[in-house]
Amino acid sequence: MINNKINIAVVGLGQVGNYLLNELITKKKDIELKTGKKIQIVAISARNKNKKRKFKINKSIFFQNPLDIFKKKKIDILFEAIGQSDGVSKKIVETALKNKIHVVTPNKALISKHGDFLSYLAEKNHVNLEFEASVAGGIPILRTIKEGLATNKLNKVYGILNGTCNYILSEMEKTRDSFSIVLKKAQDLGYAEPGNPKLDLNGYDAFAKIRILSSLAFNKKISKNKCLMEGIENIEYKDIEIASQLNFRIKLLGITEIINGELFERVHPALVNKDTYIGNVNGVMNAVIVEGLPVGESVLQGEGAGPGATSSALMSDLLSILRGNIKYPFGLPDFKRQNPISYNQKLSSNSLYLRLEVKDKSGVLSEITKLLANNRISIQRVIQIPNHKKKSASIVIITHKSLEFRSQNLINSLKKNKNVLKKPVLIRLF
Amino acid sequence: MINNKINIAVVGLGQVGNYLLNELITKKKDIELKTGKKIQIVAISARNKNKKRKFKINKSIFFQNPLDIFKKKKIDILFEAIGQSDGVSKKIVETALKNKIHVVTPNKALISKHGDFLSYLAEKNHVNLEFEASVAGGIPILRTIKEGLATNKLNKVYGILNGTCNYILSEMEKTRDSFSIVLKKAQDLGYAEPGNPKLDLNGYDAFAKIRILSSLAFNKKISKNKCLMEGIENIEYKDIEIASQLNFRIKLLGITEIINGELFERVHPALVNKDTYIGNVNGVMNAVIVEGLPVGESVLQGEGAGPGATSSALMSDLLSILRGNIKYPFGLPDFKRQNPISYNQKLSSNSLYLRLEVKDKSGVLSEITKLLANNRISIQRVIQIPNHKKKSASIVIITHKSLEFRSQNLINSLKKNKNVLKKPVLIRLF
Repeated sequence: MINNKINIAVVGLGQVGNYLLNELITKKKDIELKTGKKIQIVAISARNKNKKRKFKINKSIFFQNPLDIFKKKKIDILFEAIGQSDGVSKKIVETALKNKIHVVTPNKALISKHGDFLSYLAEKNHVNLEFEASVAGGIPILRTIKEGLATNKLNKVYGILNGTCNYILSEMEKTRDSFSIVLKKAQDLGYAEPGNPKLDLNGYDAFAKIRILSSLAFNKKISKNKCLMEGIENIEYKDIEIASQLNFRIKLLGITEIINGELFERVHPALVNKDTYIGNVNGVMNAVIVEGLPVGESVLQGEGAGPGATSSALMSDLLSILRGNIKYPFGLPDFKRQNPISYNQKLSSNSLYLRLEVKDKSGVLSEITKLLANNRISIQRVIQIPNHKKKSASIVIITHKSLEFRSQNLINSLKKNKNVLKKPVLIRLF
Repeated sequence: MINNKINIAVVGLGQVGNYLLNELITKKKDIELKTGKKIQIVAISARNKNKKRKFKINKSIFFQNPLDIFKKKKIDILFEAIGQSDGVSKKIVETALKNKIHVVTPNKALISKHGDFLSYLAEKNHVNLEFEASVAGGIPILRTIKEGLATNKLNKVYGILNGTCNYILSEMEKTRDSFSIVLKKAQDLGYAEPGNPKLDLNGYDAFAKIRILSSLAFNKKISKNKCLMEGIENIEYKDIEIASQLNFRIKLLGITEIINGELFERVHPALVNKDTYIGNVNGVMNAVIVEGLPVGESVLQGEGAGPGATSSALMSDLLSILRGNIKYPFGLPDFKRQNPISYNQKLSSNSLYLRLEVKDKSGVLSEITKLLANNRISIQRVIQIPNHKKKSASIVIITHKSLEFRSQNLINSLKKNKNVLKKPVLIRLF
């Protein structure tokens, strides 16, 4: 980049794109002061030119088809804020990189799926592909791993990576409301997608972030294996209440670590002790914990979502490019990043929280404890709560550590048992 | 920097310098991979060539007088790890910058005192002056403010910035030991300076860090005003115990914020609620909380001291330079950084924890509460604990919010009171 005038295109003007555009306009002077570069927005694109937006847009630079931008304008930096994992998002980013245009995007679906290929393209064309906003918006976690902790040997990264799920779990605990009532509230507040919140709730969103984190932390290609992914859809207020009595909170955790050279990535709800740091990260907050040598344990917490936090990350990427901080998107040249070897999660072990809804009649508990014994899972604690109205009972069992494949076998036999009335709830202890 | 071979000098081979040297040697390949640059250590210097060190040094590149390095070697990057606020530390950094040599240092005393001048020199000579390691070693807080949160408007930064004090306070709570016993233990463990721990305990160390943080967060020159600086030397186990009964912990906090355009920097022990995040940062951990727009609240926690955490920060600065990330040391050009206007701390207000050791006789409590009333300080809570053996009593008072100048007047009248046996203990509530 020889010039001091930098041409910028913003593609996608949803909540994030629109907020970003306003930030770019209002912080122009500040950016010039900090980097010596004058930015100008020369192209914008979105599906609907006339949609009502929070901040006004300059329609004279509007492109209906984002791919026309490349033909008609000279662009230095492109922001992609459409958010698809493939389709037009991929097409635009690919075309930009091939045309030696730097790309900044908050698109975790795209990066977790095509990050290796796009990173290779960026490297080949000597431009930046920046995606700080794709993981935990308000927390500069990717920059921290790539730059702040560069040269540390990291062995584990974990945390609360989905603000929507964390809000729902915290709010259920606070209000004692059911999952569906709190989900509705989250949607009304704009935390969860109004149409389809599935990708947040089933753990997919957190898993995409974990993949990006693994890749950066352990210098590997992005894993293709899904390993262990469970969401919070089956958690009831009852579970939160019982967990609380046992001094636990339920959190959706994303965890990635290297075990004997193998990559173990997973996302699942977990019982965490109320007295721990992670047990006290509530509401829409995100938190990431990084363990490494020589640095020890680092904790980063901040707002994980919303256009403000996301724009903050997008702007930091922009300034990094403007300062000429050219670097490999994943910290290493492509040829040095190897495919990870996946850890066999069946060999992992956890203490379990099991909640079973059973018929309230004699002999049931002994039947169930026998099933546990058959699977060589030993019991730490049992709580039986009768529900006289329904002639049923809840049995909650906390087990000692047991191997994952044994836990799965146990769940299968419990599902078949006639005295077990509903699908058992299994939550791992962290 | 045109060349791919980078010549490095390390001056100061104490705990930090020695550890760093070993990191530079063992991570050479990794650095080359990540940045494309080959580093070579061409000069080292320390007071004592033959001192026993944890890692061996190459004596053939040893310089007795660090200033000789500039005459005899071509250096690209210099690490200053001596740690003086003036003297040879300042001389070396100044000479390096004037010779267009990039400088990396963990020296908070130097930067908080001469940072403006040295930053100006770096800017004039188009080289970097990096000091990430000077504040909260394991936490990349300066990079986060300068880069990760660039373009955010920050209004407050606060946290636990001195690991030694935090260790002492946590350990006193845990073991119920006295201040002096725990201080001895901290020294034995290498957390506190064996000779003179004063600069940690009296708040000076945390204050130097707060000055650097203010300057970066609010884009101002480094303040010269000391404002409010109190250490933990007068805190007794008794205070920790009483605080605990009231659901508080005592923490040494560093706080900087902008109030109506004026800078309010302070370091003092504070009573923080046990249920808050900051109340649960224990041991040698550091934590920094940044409040800004649009990002919201960001929290960073990590090991604050020790050669591992410090080296991690020094290495991240090195990689930043090697990647060509040339930037203003304080984020802005020198001419744009104005002197801060100081807030008048006498106008600040806090609830207070007061502990008075008084004669155990009738009328004393009424005399003291009258003094509070005279100073227009109203009482929230009073606890009186008699000590029959000594014919004395401890009176603990939690006040409502009162203005700082009234609190100081109260302390002065209490000191003069014949029934008050010792210097009153005052801790602000946060």
